[in-house]
Amino acid sequence: MDEPTDRQLTDLDEAECYRLAATEPVGRLVWTGPDGPSVVPVNFTLEEGVVRVRTAAYSALAQQCDDSRVAFEVDAYDPDSRLGWSVILAGRASVGFVEPGAPAPEVWPVGAKAVQLTIEVDKVTGRRLRQR
Amino acid sequence: MDEPTDRQLTDLDEAECYRLAATEPVGRLVWTGPDGPSVVPVNFTLEEGVVRVRTAAYSALAQQCDDSRVAFEVDAYDPDSRLGWSVILAGRASVGFVEPGAPAPEVWPVGAKAVQLTIEVDKVTGRRLRQR
Repeated sequence: MDEPTDRQLTDLDEAECYRLAATEPVGRLVWTGPDGPSVVPVNFTLEEGVVRVRTAAYSALAQQCDDSRVAFEVDAYDPDSRLGWSVILAGRASVGFVEPGAPAPEVWPVGAKAVQLTIEVDKVTGRRLRQR
Repeated sequence: MDEPTDRQLTDLDEAECYRLAATEPVGRLVWTGPDGPSVVPVNFTLEEGVVRVRTAAYSALAQQCDDSRVAFEVDAYDPDSRLGWSVILAGRASVGFVEPGAPAPEVWPVGAKAVQLTIEVDKVTGRRLRQR
């Protein structure tokens, strides 16, 4: 019989990180703003090496993230089994107006999203919490 | 008939932020480390004004967050309705050995968690994505 605490974190390889992160509709953009560490959940698109987010021009992330280092976190957990995974994609963000033809996430909240934040990912890490 | 994009973000008051955040078993600790913005999902306990997390003494968050400003994010979304909420609790973190009798989260991964990270929350924000 497994003990309830017999869950172990194991590292995921990069391909698995991309595969899993692409299955979720919401991730969390993390940056350092004028008030310190900041985070906001957002919809996104993911291709190998590139995360794309859309936002309003007046949003904190549009105003504070350009040419900055950011992290993008995606996870999923099952509260019953208490198993799951998390992936972190880190890199440099650039902010600009939406490029015609660029991959567009389906953005859940209503409102104009004229700005595109693009992360050029240079570090991929992920962990799975599994039953040993 | 509601348009599928007719979802609006509204601010949550502080009491609702605490109530909602306490319903989730996993939150995300956000800090600025030596490599830039950093994030890790963790189990936690929440009382008004105080978030507590347990971790291993060698973990990045134990080594990098003491006496630092951090943010703690909790959210929940329904992928079918595309509605949900997010809460961010920001404040100063302190790292120390576990105090006897301190509230202890149920930590999902196996392994010694001798260190307690405590956030004294001084800023609470939250948003709900609801159908207009």
